[in-house]
Amino acid sequence: MKHKTDEAPMIERRATRRTTDDRWRTALTCIEPNKIMIRGYPVDEMMGRLTFGEAIYLLLMGEVPSPGIGSLMEAMLVSFIDHGATPPSTLAARNTATTGAALRACVASGVLGFGRYHGGDIESCMHFLDAGLHLVRDGATYREAAEQIVNKCRASEEPIPGFGHRFHTRDPRAARLFQMALELEVEGEHVQMIRAVEILLHDAAQPEAPLPVNIDGAIAAVCGDLGIPPNVANALFIISRVPGLAAHAREESERHAPMRQIDPKDHVYDGPSERRLPDRRSR
Amino acid sequence: MKHKTDEAPMIERRATRRTTDDRWRTALTCIEPNKIMIRGYPVDEMMGRLTFGEAIYLLLMGEVPSPGIGSLMEAMLVSFIDHGATPPSTLAARNTATTGAALRACVASGVLGFGRYHGGDIESCMHFLDAGLHLVRDGATYREAAEQIVNKCRASEEPIPGFGHRFHTRDPRAARLFQMALELEVEGEHVQMIRAVEILLHDAAQPEAPLPVNIDGAIAAVCGDLGIPPNVANALFIISRVPGLAAHAREESERHAPMRQIDPKDHVYDGPSERRLPDRRSR
Amino acid sequence: MKHKTDEAPMIERRATRRTTDDRWRTALTCIEPNKIMIRGYPVDEMMGRLTFGEAIYLLLMGEVPSPGIGSLMEAMLVSFIDHGATPPSTLAARNTATTGAALRACVASGVLGFGRYHGGDIESCMHFLDAGLHLVRDGATYREAAEQIVNKCRASEEPIPGFGHRFHTRDPRAARLFQMALELEVEGEHVQMIRAVEILLHDAAQPEAPLPVNIDGAIAAVCGDLGIPPNVANALFIISRVPGLAAHAREESERHAPMRQIDPKDHVYDGPSERRLPDRRSR
Amino acid sequence: MKHKTDEAPMIERRATRRTTDDRWRTALTCIEPNKIMIRGYPVDEMMGRLTFGEAIYLLLMGEVPSPGIGSLMEAMLVSFIDHGATPPSTLAARNTATTGAALRACVASGVLGFGRYHGGDIESCMHFLDAGLHLVRDGATYREAAEQIVNKCRASEEPIPGFGHRFHTRDPRAARLFQMALELEVEGEHVQMIRAVEILLHDAAQPEAPLPVNIDGAIAAVCGDLGIPPNVANALFIISRVPGLAAHAREESERHAPMRQIDPKDHVYDGPSERRLPDRRSR
Repeated sequence: MKHKTDEAPMIERRATRRTTDDRWRTALTCIEPNKIMIRGYPVDEMMGRLTFGEAIYLLLMGEVPSPGIGSLMEAMLVSFIDHGATPPSTLAARNTATTGAALRACVASGVLGFGRYHGGDIESCMHFLDAGLHLVRDGATYREAAEQIVNKCRASEEPIPGFGHRFHTRDPRAARLFQMALELEVEGEHVQMIRAVEILLHDAAQPEAPLPVNIDGAIAAVCGDLGIPPNVANALFIISRVPGLAAHAREESERHAPMRQIDPKDHVYDGPSERRLPDRRSR
Repeated sequence: MKHKTDEAPMIERRATRRTTDDRWRTALTCIEPNKIMIRGYPVDEMMGRLTFGEAIYLLLMGEVPSPGIGSLMEAMLVSFIDHGATPPSTLAARNTATTGAALRACVASGVLGFGRYHGGDIESCMHFLDAGLHLVRDGATYREAAEQIVNKCRASEEPIPGFGHRFHTRDPRAARLFQMALELEVEGEHVQMIRAVEILLHDAAQPEAPLPVNIDGAIAAVCGDLGIPPNVANALFIISRVPGLAAHAREESERHAPMRQIDPKDHVYDGPSERRLPDRRSR
Repeated sequence: MKHKTDEAPMIERRATRRTTDDRWRTALTCIEPNKIMIRGYPVDEMMGRLTFGEAIYLLLMGEVPSPGIGSLMEAMLVSFIDHGATPPSTLAARNTATTGAALRACVASGVLGFGRYHGGDIESCMHFLDAGLHLVRDGATYREAAEQIVNKCRASEEPIPGFGHRFHTRDPRAARLFQMALELEVEGEHVQMIRAVEILLHDAAQPEAPLPVNIDGAIAAVCGDLGIPPNVANALFIISRVPGLAAHAREESERHAPMRQIDPKDHVYDGPSERRLPDRRSR
Repeated sequence: MKHKTDEAPMIERRATRRTTDDRWRTALTCIEPNKIMIRGYPVDEMMGRLTFGEAIYLLLMGEVPSPGIGSLMEAMLVSFIDHGATPPSTLAARNTATTGAALRACVASGVLGFGRYHGGDIESCMHFLDAGLHLVRDGATYREAAEQIVNKCRASEEPIPGFGHRFHTRDPRAARLFQMALELEVEGEHVQMIRAVEILLHDAAQPEAPLPVNIDGAIAAVCGDLGIPPNVANALFIISRVPGLAAHAREESERHAPMRQIDPKDHVYDGPSERRLPDRRSR
């Protein structure tokens, strides 16, 4: 009743030795016995010499970052590490955790929420700034370019990507990132472009309804000036949010009853009060 | 035909002001207007002062790590950042990428593969070492304790967690991590315990079939000595593998045709040849 | 600077024609040009002749079910199709939907919540009943076996799998499934065993705290009597909940604003009032 | 050092009784004690009276289908139930299974692969046919409409959605679904439109490179004629593929070694040979 189709037509035959050109290619990591090389660097030599943030840059961009770019990478990754208990991605992770699921399942459930309305602004803002810079290269001033790209958004009733926030009227992370980019002398035309948009919006806004640059916008501008393409910026966002998802899922499992009903707004923070970083940390 | 049940019995009523004690609690992050505090530290002050690895430790463990522990955190996170194109988690991510899925979906698909046989060894090895240390505290020598826990594994036909590797006869990452733990003076009883097991296995092994400590074992021992609990060690593993999943998913989308059939072994590495890190990186 | 390793030692060579025995095997579906055979049956012949529920049984169990077993399959799959807006799996799907994610991502996010406390009871209850039947085969009465397995649960402070419900004091789905199993003459020792446990618990319970068989318990007993193994019963549970996850994710996207905060209990049902099925449906 | 913010400004207050209008709404399922109503029908009354396929239609579309539409639902769901071991979604599920992951994780990993190039054709084809029917309503013949929409695809170098297949030159599932739609008298303008495109492509094609309607196209046309919107058709596709993902993940766990390297093409089918359905099944 059972048969084995030795000659099944769908099975590709490999009667001859495969040549290099038939094989698919990857340029990320080379594994040899007792040797793991990431973009050419032995991973054991990277340990202790590169930070995780620098290794992430190396893996995604292909080269070890300069110290200044490395510092900006760390700052961008730190800026997103957690945003409290109310983002939908965090709630997806917590709702999965309350069922008794494994940590990896909670993290996966949360990662799936980094969609169009949640983190997607970084890529949108990069394309928005590039559209403005295209106009600048064609002769427009930054102010004129800002006016054109803002008007285009408004005409299509789209929000302006990288501006405004549900909770904050001034995003402290954006300010800090711009300050670091200035100090590390990596500011360039993308930061200049987003500044022009910010000034334009400030001039136009009602004082009670400011529309400040948010952290998505700041990261979009800094990534643009560092030559990081939009899909790598998107990867950085996903990477940076995973520790927060893991921390919330673990806290859910350890502090709360299983199968509870999680009302996002009905919580209270009971961790440490505001405090200062140890002095030695001021590098 | 439609009705609205104003008095539906399943809807909990909240007729009175909620007190703090009715609300659920979180100790991770406090969000106030224009202020985001991670474990009490304003995130904008963390940017530029803490690395991503240090911020991960803060978020999961509650305190800023000492510089030595911070360096070990970075090294552990770097050690797992990628392991080439053949791990099943990476292949799940690549198979999802070839369907045209979003990067977050590819990452989630890959994260789900960090299961019992893939990364699960870290937690198993921590429990294994703790069982040995329990015997030591009851008066056994490390050698005697090692014999007992190894025999228990063998009696139940379980592999010894944290030892052996599919590809490598000597895991270069494990050696490097132990060296760092020694130099940073954080070696403790867990490292001593795993060393005792390693010597025992070495004495018993056939020369042609060595069973060396692998990176899972090394991380288990070092996390044990740092006071990092097993579920946080598991979170670190998941976090550390996400950049690799993202890099493979992105490379799949950019270099290969959609809907291709991915034979894991049929690939060739075409990235940079082995190279040395820039000198300034020898911190 | 780039190299291509034609002789990389990790790449398996396939210098000779592969024989059948080297290849891995699958017994589910055979694909030939213009022909798709599921367990030997051409899928186009199955269309119109087997229901989806019967085809699910065929795929998982290997044979076309008898009409009676087919009807029970449909009933079990229908019984779980949705449980409203409050289960954590549904909330994970809705929280993912509110970020603008694709339907498949919302479904995946929800599926990950079918964990230890959410659907896991079916498998636990099957093992619980099998433990009782083992005692019966060794000479115990059903009542004695029920006492032993219930006492064992209570000694380890585990809840009794397949009994009790957060909301319902009597699960209407369980009653209906037992009635169908009786009418279709597939009741057997597993149903007899769960009945013995139910009577035992009823005798012992306070009238105000009944502990009725729930739908997980009923499905566990019926699957046991049908010879469906625990992991297939688990697969049926996952399959049966997917339409509900998809329906909630779609409703979330179509009826609600993006990035909203979803309080599980703060909702009202505004669909059709209770109604009767069309008469012709009384098969 | 710890504080509890009783007055934290981010916590929404609910000092008064909530009215119906403040609550969010769902029209899918109403849960009352001992009562579960799907779209108004008690689920225990649905058990034994509706098939799973009919219940899926009810949940997604809001009403019990007519017998003819019910039969088409079953046929569409059966048509996709499995497509062998080579689709990338199946391989993502198998690669996750080989790590020892839970069945739900394998299913989720596979579901994430139903992307742009894998199942996405159904929605694309529905929009494609609607574009043609828009032209017909404006006075074009079906042939003229077909020419315009095909030319538009070709101008943008997009493949024609719903036509062609990687493996099959004639999709047996498409032929069967059209035959059923004809017999059940639900054929309408969408089927007519796709027929017009098929004839046009047949006239233009080289005999050795036919471009037949595939099952995605057939489902798109039939769903269009049944009034099923594109996002529900997409939900049906996801639902229909879950049993296959579960069956492959289970087979992977039961028949193969953990952590194996899965070459998609290197397999052989060893299930039952082609066979005929039992006679009583010819409804």
